[in-house]
Amino acid sequence: MRIDILTLFPDMCRAVYGESILGRAIAKGMIEVHARNIRDYTLDKHNRVDDTPYGGGMGMLMQAQPIYDCFGALCEELGARPHLIYLSAQGALLTQRRARELAAMPNIALLCGHYEGVDERVLRAIVDEEISIGDYVLTGGELPALVLTDCVARMVPGVLPNEEAYARESHYGGLLEHPQYTKPYEWNGMRVPDVLISGHHANIEAWKRRESLRRTLERRPDLLENAELTAEDARILAQLRETQEDPA
Amino acid sequence: MRIDILTLFPDMCRAVYGESILGRAIAKGMIEVHARNIRDYTLDKHNRVDDTPYGGGMGMLMQAQPIYDCFGALCEELGARPHLIYLSAQGALLTQRRARELAAMPNIALLCGHYEGVDERVLRAIVDEEISIGDYVLTGGELPALVLTDCVARMVPGVLPNEEAYARESHYGGLLEHPQYTKPYEWNGMRVPDVLISGHHANIEAWKRRESLRRTLERRPDLLENAELTAEDARILAQLRETQEDPA
Repeated sequence: MRIDILTLFPDMCRAVYGESILGRAIAKGMIEVHARNIRDYTLDKHNRVDDTPYGGGMGMLMQAQPIYDCFGALCEELGARPHLIYLSAQGALLTQRRARELAAMPNIALLCGHYEGVDERVLRAIVDEEISIGDYVLTGGELPALVLTDCVARMVPGVLPNEEAYARESHYGGLLEHPQYTKPYEWNGMRVPDVLISGHHANIEAWKRRESLRRTLERRPDLLENAELTAEDARILAQLRETQEDPA
Repeated sequence: MRIDILTLFPDMCRAVYGESILGRAIAKGMIEVHARNIRDYTLDKHNRVDDTPYGGGMGMLMQAQPIYDCFGALCEELGARPHLIYLSAQGALLTQRRARELAAMPNIALLCGHYEGVDERVLRAIVDEEISIGDYVLTGGELPALVLTDCVARMVPGVLPNEEAYARESHYGGLLEHPQYTKPYEWNGMRVPDVLISGHHANIEAWKRRESLRRTLERRPDLLENAELTAEDARILAQLRETQEDPA
């Protein structure tokens, strides 16, 4: 899979995807990520890429032409038109499901806005989809594009060091993860829960599931509506709810 | 305000907050952001910071000791204990409101997990709050920490180049932004809407509000439940809904 980021800050993007798990996957050829500088495509003689908004208001907007030509150059180089996503607070919220669908595409391109936004006409002309990473405001689209890159890339086969890690998502089926413990056995006066060192596989799995349900109930009860729950899960949840309501 | 990021990838973090709007605000002394390498605090002679999880499962967990000592060193240096946030998929969803509250604190520290997660005991010992930037899975906590840093920092007075940009949030009162246009007037056969070049301030504002309502209704109707709406807004929405239902 190949991901192209269209941005005014290519170095910032490269510094992120060049490191850690993503950096290793790129080095091994499991995935390709490129950052392309929109400013390289401006026809303005002063190299400008932004101007004031029509209808007033402070701040600057990114102009249509440099973005349009930057995307055009990418299409020409690829010999194909990648699915173009504009990262914006006006988009649909990113979900794990959508990331999984995007990970199945051979090419995607990510357009990063900056300043106060982007001229609407270029969005209408070339953008296939707008995605928001959450209901909060950021100074630019680079971090959202990098979040999307990380989220999509880790689902491309071979990118994660082991398969289990990304099987887990579906394993947990929409619940929060249980607490986790590593060495040493005793730290700062706190021990690892007995069951985890019991060696009893079925008990360990039951404990993990119960703690996962408990945590979801306590912290994100909204997730339970769409989680994949068995009859046993429902029984445990009913029990946990009783304890919640009556702590005595 | 000062933000400290505790991470295994300090260079990646610095590359992001050193650039653009945040980089300029740091250079001007409007805000301080530091990245501290957790690995510098491990007592392991091979410099390790992770180990296998108790109870089985693949992948590695970050150990308690290096994180605990890294945070201890930060507290000692500051002569105070900053509010410590762990970025995790198990946390409460980040909202603009919470970011605004955090921006009013003098010091916050952000703990980035990596690999499969962090030993639960150190979270219980030192973490004040867990925050998730969205319901999707990432390879580490660095991008979420950088998203939170950007979101919080831009609300610190003096960080944004002009005040209007961050007043806007409340101006829009929970709605999506209207489409925006900049020069040239005609691009690729598409013109800027007439009203925006009319010079009629009241009509322009009415258009912006209407387009903002329309976009929210079309793309994120869930936001309308909590938006601040006037009687006029309600009238426009009713009209837009009628058009939606009956496009003929």
